[in-house]
Amino acid sequence: MALIVHKYGGTSMGSVERIKNVAQRVAKWHAAGHQMVVVPSAMSGETNRLIALAKEIQAQPDPRELDMVASTGEQVSVGLLSMALNAIGVPAVSYAGWQVPVRTDDAFTKARIESIDDARVRADLAAGRVVIITGFQGVDSNGNITTLGRGGSDTSAVAVAAALQAAECLIYTDVDGVYTTDPRIVPEARRLARVTFEEMLEMASLGSKVLQIRSVEFAGKYRVKTRVLSSLTPPDIDLATEAESGTLITFEEDEQMEKAVISGIAFNRDEAKITVTNVPDRPGIAYQILGPVAEANIDVDMIIQNASVGGNTDFSFTVHRNEYQKAIAVLNDTVKSRIQAGDIVGDPKIAKVSVVGIGMRSHVGIASLMFRTLSQEGINIQMISTSEIKISVVIEDKYMELAVRALHKAFELDQPAAA
Amino acid sequence: MALIVHKYGGTSMGSVERIKNVAQRVAKWHAAGHQMVVVPSAMSGETNRLIALAKEIQAQPDPRELDMVASTGEQVSVGLLSMALNAIGVPAVSYAGWQVPVRTDDAFTKARIESIDDARVRADLAAGRVVIITGFQGVDSNGNITTLGRGGSDTSAVAVAAALQAAECLIYTDVDGVYTTDPRIVPEARRLARVTFEEMLEMASLGSKVLQIRSVEFAGKYRVKTRVLSSLTPPDIDLATEAESGTLITFEEDEQMEKAVISGIAFNRDEAKITVTNVPDRPGIAYQILGPVAEANIDVDMIIQNASVGGNTDFSFTVHRNEYQKAIAVLNDTVKSRIQAGDIVGDPKIAKVSVVGIGMRSHVGIASLMFRTLSQEGINIQMISTSEIKISVVIEDKYMELAVRALHKAFELDQPAAA
Repeated sequence: MALIVHKYGGTSMGSVERIKNVAQRVAKWHAAGHQMVVVPSAMSGETNRLIALAKEIQAQPDPRELDMVASTGEQVSVGLLSMALNAIGVPAVSYAGWQVPVRTDDAFTKARIESIDDARVRADLAAGRVVIITGFQGVDSNGNITTLGRGGSDTSAVAVAAALQAAECLIYTDVDGVYTTDPRIVPEARRLARVTFEEMLEMASLGSKVLQIRSVEFAGKYRVKTRVLSSLTPPDIDLATEAESGTLITFEEDEQMEKAVISGIAFNRDEAKITVTNVPDRPGIAYQILGPVAEANIDVDMIIQNASVGGNTDFSFTVHRNEYQKAIAVLNDTVKSRIQAGDIVGDPKIAKVSVVGIGMRSHVGIASLMFRTLSQEGINIQMISTSEIKISVVIEDKYMELAVRALHKAFELDQPAAA
Repeated sequence: MALIVHKYGGTSMGSVERIKNVAQRVAKWHAAGHQMVVVPSAMSGETNRLIALAKEIQAQPDPRELDMVASTGEQVSVGLLSMALNAIGVPAVSYAGWQVPVRTDDAFTKARIESIDDARVRADLAAGRVVIITGFQGVDSNGNITTLGRGGSDTSAVAVAAALQAAECLIYTDVDGVYTTDPRIVPEARRLARVTFEEMLEMASLGSKVLQIRSVEFAGKYRVKTRVLSSLTPPDIDLATEAESGTLITFEEDEQMEKAVISGIAFNRDEAKITVTNVPDRPGIAYQILGPVAEANIDVDMIIQNASVGGNTDFSFTVHRNEYQKAIAVLNDTVKSRIQAGDIVGDPKIAKVSVVGIGMRSHVGIASLMFRTLSQEGINIQMISTSEIKISVVIEDKYMELAVRALHKAFELDQPAAA
């Protein structure tokens, strides 16, 4: 008997039949004696429909009003799921974010959760009710509805689990766990039974679509045992089997880990690189280049500045591909003349490929194996950036699949790691 | 310069283009210096879609959860309308019922407004913002979302106007006012420039679909000057013309009234009549018959009990046609044996036709003109019921149109009344 949080995505909530399946699954856990809190997303397509409607009215919708509109999809979901549980004899009650309340800052469309009140939820759980809480939304200190941004329901679920000190947060998705890499590119990719939250963080930030990155940060910060598992199994499969399925995101020091050096290969094709050439090598130059970019609300990912030769250097960074033209324009308009740089050059046809692994901390030779593997395939490396548990390279985008497959094999990710 | 409340129905909010039209109309009033509060309904079809979804999940949806789901349509509307105003440079802000708050009792799906806090709204109005408030919904004392039942947005608008002591509440609909009767049945029907709230109350309760009856009660109780007018005029028509159009619901003692004896002919075909024959004429019998009917949640409209002859009498009443079978079953199961009545007989094929007029109070001969007119057309009267300003008869439903046309002519409603 434990307090368990379930999160279901839009696909799992996508039709009346599927909502009834979710109810069956939750009822099974409830019947086993667990205290159940469920965080569902909006029915698939609903949030997109609402945002499209808003954009028809106003090309750049007022953010507060957009949240007012976009948050309704989750409210419909919680009500319907509560009905589906009541219909099969399981007492349930639904809450919108403001009713719990889930308090956030006032950054509309990308708010951050500040606190979650557990009093009302605990009273319902004590009375034997399943509590269903909207994902994706909260309320700011002025009583305005806020949303957490895309994928925010994952974050809501983990945050609710943290606030309630839940035994585990189960994220049901349309994949059955976290893989060593994308099985659509590498058929030999293996599901990981466990992954550390640091690795998950790197994988999520590198484009693995399994979990929203902020939910992983939350899981790490509050030590929430979080499991990613399939919502496509029959709702009545054996509970013990289900409880051990998927991938558990865990904490190195708490858990016995697989001893793999590398856990996975992450990749994405969403970025573009930009280089400012012939930059004077003096204090403040990085800020002078990236300040105006940040002011234009453009997120920067990798940043590379090499040691200077003869007082000048090249300064490179990557941005989301959708913001490539805007970033180039900002640099030409404001930065170029101000710092007397050479040229602004760039390339949107790049891919980033990364090897990720907590074991990297205590192993040498990872970088050289990675670079040798790419070299053997004739793939030129354009940029390199490293963290404690990750090495990322930027390559020409047409080589991405080849690079992922070669690295997956070179690091023997198709073989189960020794315990 | 005045504080004005506008209410727009689902048809007016039915598409992006129509929402933009509403914004243009509100902007015109705002530009004329008025403080504007707007109460829109959900986009047409949306509430029905949500309720249908709920019923697919649970045949009799849990009322609290149904309100959670059904209230989202209005939330989408207020956000979109606020965006449409912001898009044309008019500062606007939207609120859900709980944000104002609009406080109600906890009778889910048919809640009643208890109070409306005006502080937040007044602050926005003082800052020059148009305030957009969801119709149809409120919040109970436990923070649960409630809805007011069908047509509840009219009530919301009038209640908001009352709370803010608005100069006028304008209800924009797809008809251009209140008519002496339905023009689809009587082409000579005339629009009334003014109607008293008591007459409007009788007309609304008798099936004129123009306004929800509770909104008329509110208008009467709080003396809210309420106008029903067309939402189909071009949004940029002259404001002074628009402000005088439609039908003003007014208060006899305040206003110079048309001196018509009868204001209109109301009718409906939604009812069924039931008679319990041979009922012992003793105290408590009406309660013994209607108590179980009320407990079964069946609303009763007309109730007739004639003077008894020889200690026994017949007891008749009407219910909504959809509840006819249920009412008959209740009477057969619980009432018949308990009071030793004769038979339970009934007829769902009836229509109710009423003449309504404040002038009836001080005029004689209305009833006899009504009965003579029906008699001349060969229409048999099955039941009669009267109030101070209304006479209703039940007739066979196939004669309804004939009766309405004959009465409209007999009372000279096609002629403008003398001032």
